[in-house]
Amino acid sequence: MGIEIERKFLVDKNKLSEEIQKNNFDKVFSIAQGYLKNEKEQTIRVRIKGEKGFLTIKGEQQGAIRAEYEYEIPVEDAEHLLYTCKEGRIIKKRYLIPYKGKLWEVDFFEEENEGLVVAEIELSEEREEFAKPKWLGDEITSDFRYTNAVLVKRPFKTW
Amino acid sequence: MGIEIERKFLVDKNKLSEEIQKNNFDKVFSIAQGYLKNEKEQTIRVRIKGEKGFLTIKGEQQGAIRAEYEYEIPVEDAEHLLYTCKEGRIIKKRYLIPYKGKLWEVDFFEEENEGLVVAEIELSEEREEFAKPKWLGDEITSDFRYTNAVLVKRPFKTW
Repeated sequence: MGIEIERKFLVDKNKLSEEIQKNNFDKVFSIAQGYLKNEKEQTIRVRIKGEKGFLTIKGEQQGAIRAEYEYEIPVEDAEHLLYTCKEGRIIKKRYLIPYKGKLWEVDFFEEENEGLVVAEIELSEEREEFAKPKWLGDEITSDFRYTNAVLVKRPFKTW
Repeated sequence: MGIEIERKFLVDKNKLSEEIQKNNFDKVFSIAQGYLKNEKEQTIRVRIKGEKGFLTIKGEQQGAIRAEYEYEIPVEDAEHLLYTCKEGRIIKKRYLIPYKGKLWEVDFFEEENEGLVVAEIELSEEREEFAKPKWLGDEITSDFRYTNAVLVKRPFKTW
């Protein structure tokens, strides 16, 4: 088992674009994911990230904390399982952006969620301090509308 | 992905007991399992089998055939996940019994399903011929009451 402690923020897209162009980040992954189970108490996600497949079970979110179990699976399995996700899929590009000793995961959503950009940082405890890059916007850790499990049901473009 | 082709039978318990005592089978596993998702079109099962943990996704059954994806996971994860199964658990002992070139899995159910004994054989194609041991009873391949996913909701003792 793992415990995932994560804080999540909106992003100032103009400032971030400058940053990305200036630094020429090459750590970019294409992500496609869907939900085999999508309930508040538990989600089961199938994800294709670059060339790899993953199955991830998450418990209910408490503040910034969630139980998380993640297993790598054959990417062919992930492709087949993605077709069984009734609610559709989330498609996004993920940039890994280092900033002052921390690695930010910045997701540029596509298709039905185009226009949405979200930055996440993983912490080792809920109150851990971290430096905020200048492209960081409002915190949305506790705003469930921005979770992928909710975005697949109520995409950003429909807001 | 895998395709599971399986036929399932009831068992004459007296004849099988003789057989087990005579041959002193040592391949016995304790199995505890529950369902993270339990719908007709798809089940997601967490299982502890002996010292190992497994996560198994199965598609809808068509005759003797089902899509099946199985992944080994840390047994500690399986233990935690089993607690999240709302419908409860299936507990059984599995004997692996060889007979004329085939291996039968014979499950002795416990707790709420005590009294039920089911034998399964895995085939490489739906029409494959196989020899029937003398302890084999009626075929129940298409009788959904005997699937573990249904037994966890409607245990044998309540029939």
